[in-house]
Amino acid sequence: MRFALIGHTDHWAEYGPMLKEEKDVELVAVTVGAPEETLERVAKAPGVSGKTKVYPTPEEMFREEKLDLVQVATRPDLIPKYVAMAVERGVAVMAEKPLAMDLETLYKLYGTVRAAGVPVAAMHAQRADGPLCAVKQAVASGAIGTPLLCHSQKSYKWRGNRPDYFRTRATFPGSAGYVGLHAIDWMYWILGDIFEAVTAYGTQAVFADYPACESHSGYLFKLADNRAATFTLDYLRPNEAPTHGDARVRVVGTKGVVESVFNDGYATLIDEKGARQISGVSGLAWYTSFVRAVKGVGESFLSVAAAFRITEIALKAQQALDSGETVSLKDSPYAGH
Amino acid sequence: MRFALIGHTDHWAEYGPMLKEEKDVELVAVTVGAPEETLERVAKAPGVSGKTKVYPTPEEMFREEKLDLVQVATRPDLIPKYVAMAVERGVAVMAEKPLAMDLETLYKLYGTVRAAGVPVAAMHAQRADGPLCAVKQAVASGAIGTPLLCHSQKSYKWRGNRPDYFRTRATFPGSAGYVGLHAIDWMYWILGDIFEAVTAYGTQAVFADYPACESHSGYLFKLADNRAATFTLDYLRPNEAPTHGDARVRVVGTKGVVESVFNDGYATLIDEKGARQISGVSGLAWYTSFVRAVKGVGESFLSVAAAFRITEIALKAQQALDSGETVSLKDSPYAGH
Repeated sequence: MRFALIGHTDHWAEYGPMLKEEKDVELVAVTVGAPEETLERVAKAPGVSGKTKVYPTPEEMFREEKLDLVQVATRPDLIPKYVAMAVERGVAVMAEKPLAMDLETLYKLYGTVRAAGVPVAAMHAQRADGPLCAVKQAVASGAIGTPLLCHSQKSYKWRGNRPDYFRTRATFPGSAGYVGLHAIDWMYWILGDIFEAVTAYGTQAVFADYPACESHSGYLFKLADNRAATFTLDYLRPNEAPTHGDARVRVVGTKGVVESVFNDGYATLIDEKGARQISGVSGLAWYTSFVRAVKGVGESFLSVAAAFRITEIALKAQQALDSGETVSLKDSPYAGH
Repeated sequence: MRFALIGHTDHWAEYGPMLKEEKDVELVAVTVGAPEETLERVAKAPGVSGKTKVYPTPEEMFREEKLDLVQVATRPDLIPKYVAMAVERGVAVMAEKPLAMDLETLYKLYGTVRAAGVPVAAMHAQRADGPLCAVKQAVASGAIGTPLLCHSQKSYKWRGNRPDYFRTRATFPGSAGYVGLHAIDWMYWILGDIFEAVTAYGTQAVFADYPACESHSGYLFKLADNRAATFTLDYLRPNEAPTHGDARVRVVGTKGVVESVFNDGYATLIDEKGARQISGVSGLAWYTSFVRAVKGVGESFLSVAAAFRITEIALKAQQALDSGETVSLKDSPYAGH
């Protein structure tokens, strides 16, 4: 299987474990996607061999190479362009998130992907986190009954300065469409597609040179049957905190409660047997499952429709945050797929 | 100082410590406020002596006794009636929450209280909790800079069945106006009156005989300057959990984060010195401070306007929950008082 990389932004190194597991996947070509990226760096990517070609642009790479799979991990505004470029050539794509920075582009890209009939997934790496897997598996097992209420938290250090593409909405989707998407993904994964509306407030109040990225934001999701999910997101974790991030999730159901402070490394389940630590079957080989599905073996961890639906929810959460208005999450083109 | 009790509902025994501290306060009369209450029980109230008179009704008590201070802790729908009855006779009141179950009654009661010029406070006993005091004092000290984002949690066991007055909105204000009011109080106490709007979703999905009290609900408060606060409230804590309740608060500021799981007994502050446990000066003698203020000594822990404003926010949060619509919290008659 002929594999290529476009870009070295964000979680671009996530393909590493897959490359070790899937011996027939060969990294045959690498290139950059954005002006901020350098050929020097991508040419030193894990898995690069003497046979790996380095191309100055994705266009040239696609012209010269017959590829089976490409990873697109570049500046957010450029992701949909390269995803479309790949699928139009019949090349499967693992893309960094979000798949698009606005709904119009997202809907258009979905049409392109469906027309091409080529597998696409997004890098929802957090689904491999042990504590999150424990929460997901507890809910899926029925241990808490029907989930009714959920709270999620993402809190990160700003750490000096962020990359320049965080500065403007021309290159950055806003924090809900960016890091917030992870929490929206896990809500979707744990609760299912029961999203009906979102309201959000926040702004950039601390790092004035980065107006495109909120320092803090709070969200309320209306879920089916008058269920609710809240979410807080901030980049205000002090640099002196013991860990970079502090992600948490708590799900309250008809029969119990399950929750995790991810940094603890476990989840806590409270049910009719009392409170106790639980662990999940962690280390979901999400990237590998996608690559195998591309080969026709088994199912991907994420359907194409789900990847687009999760992005849609995140972009609408960003709309809610930008407008201060409640935004409907119903009537999605991806529902039921 | 001649002190009397109306009712023995909910946190009615909270006056105990005050009675020990203020030697000149004498419990001269007790009565019941609601048909569910019994003279037998209120006649055994802490502080009852051979000289304490037991009256069958508040009306008879007010007719016969010259009082300085009365505690009203009875069925929620009856509270405003007895508060008005007291202040119209020049008697100061410590009232169970909420001060009223609907806004019209609340606004009318405020007019009555202002016209009487008599001190009134509500039983915000949670302000004496050590961990909450630690959070409040950390924010007040400037340790986290300007607060930008807040999350609160209240989770309680349902424990068999709740009193009958929880069953109908004729006698129960809904969970936001009831137990939710505590969290709204601490947000107000910690953050100040920066409330602009509230959106909420929830329902009673578990205890079908109690449709007036939501089993679960989630809230988003819009705060001034695009700040935000989320809140989850549930009665779904399993009976087998180690404690009755699980209250939490987390406040994120421009310079740090402070938070507490109240059951831990401490708060955690993260600032430029790293993360560490902090404790507050706890045990705020809130009830005593009110009684002393009635005597003309010092200031009450809670102004009359604040007590009504906090109730207004809680009743509007309940409106938001009942309607599924965002409700404005601006233009309060209590702002600036």
